[in-house]
Amino acid sequence: MGKFIVFEGIDGSGKTTQAKKLYEYLENKGLKTVLTKEPGGTDIGKEIRKILLSKDYNIPPIAELLLYEADRNIHTSTFVKPKLHNGYFVISDRYIYSTLAYQSFGRGIDRNIVDYLNSLATEDLKPDIVFLLDIPVEEGLNRIGKIRDKDRIEKEDINFHLKLREGFLKLAEENRDIFCVIDGTDNINSIFDKILNILKERKLIQL
Amino acid sequence: MGKFIVFEGIDGSGKTTQAKKLYEYLENKGLKTVLTKEPGGTDIGKEIRKILLSKDYNIPPIAELLLYEADRNIHTSTFVKPKLHNGYFVISDRYIYSTLAYQSFGRGIDRNIVDYLNSLATEDLKPDIVFLLDIPVEEGLNRIGKIRDKDRIEKEDINFHLKLREGFLKLAEENRDIFCVIDGTDNINSIFDKILNILKERKLIQL
Repeated sequence: MGKFIVFEGIDGSGKTTQAKKLYEYLENKGLKTVLTKEPGGTDIGKEIRKILLSKDYNIPPIAELLLYEADRNIHTSTFVKPKLHNGYFVISDRYIYSTLAYQSFGRGIDRNIVDYLNSLATEDLKPDIVFLLDIPVEEGLNRIGKIRDKDRIEKEDINFHLKLREGFLKLAEENRDIFCVIDGTDNINSIFDKILNILKERKLIQL
Repeated sequence: MGKFIVFEGIDGSGKTTQAKKLYEYLENKGLKTVLTKEPGGTDIGKEIRKILLSKDYNIPPIAELLLYEADRNIHTSTFVKPKLHNGYFVISDRYIYSTLAYQSFGRGIDRNIVDYLNSLATEDLKPDIVFLLDIPVEEGLNRIGKIRDKDRIEKEDINFHLKLREGFLKLAEENRDIFCVIDGTDNINSIFDKILNILKERKLIQL
């Protein structure tokens, strides 16, 4: 079995950058590694992601949740699990905790519903480790504004993002066995060194 | 409040034809009426339907179910319910019973899961009446072969369609207060007369 490594955090937290750095590091060491993401980690998922991020539609919250979980079911059953069974490091940019943060803590959908659907979509596949990159909401939103056009979700107001950050930190508390909260305001290389050290300490990598 | 009238049945059972005839009949009487369908009754739903019916993808059963329910949540919350509140006759080609028949009786997904998602997607919106057009599987498949290209679902084997028919009849037994089973092998006009008579008897129309 491979190792399932997840990066979580609010928009602009730097999780995509760190996921990519880790992928390149492990790849350079000659290890079987894949970098993936939710939503949109598969071909069908890309079609679903287009619908989710489109500015043309006003999608009701429950439908949005169901689309994320459809994407997740395809991603875990056709990609993540087969890769893990073949001994790969699977590095994913977002997983079930993003859905809990956005749809439950953010949009207020009953937590039991999101837990039920996360479990249904993944058959309870748990990551070996989750890196939560934590930064103040203002800094995250600023970073996004600087680096790319805002899509539908990134236009949500600051209060929504405050709820997300709080939600992620609560999830980290609830899942202390697998969550590592990392200060995302540090510089990119210091953060990456911390991540590598944690992976070595927990014997998830042996290099 | 308007009336929510649903047509169900296996492929080729004639439900689309009868739904359309009823729509035209009520429309001609000057009644506020809309004809709709699942999946694909809304603009976003059409995008979801494209994914579901595409031959390019092999969608896992749970993801397929989640996509149908996303479509259904959008359809009921943004179209069916507002129209009912505005006093419309809403005639729908397929509803929750199709998902129970196809995904649970057909593909073998645990019935509790499908019931949970049907309830979540619709907030338990029940039709005023369901017409189940019942025909032998061979006749349904023959009719489809004659009238249009087979899409992904219609290529499924005959055993699958036998399970569907059985499933629909079981659902009719369980929901005798709202289900009417109609012999779909009759000629189109006789079937339509029966449907009109039942609607009048049950005081769903007063014409």
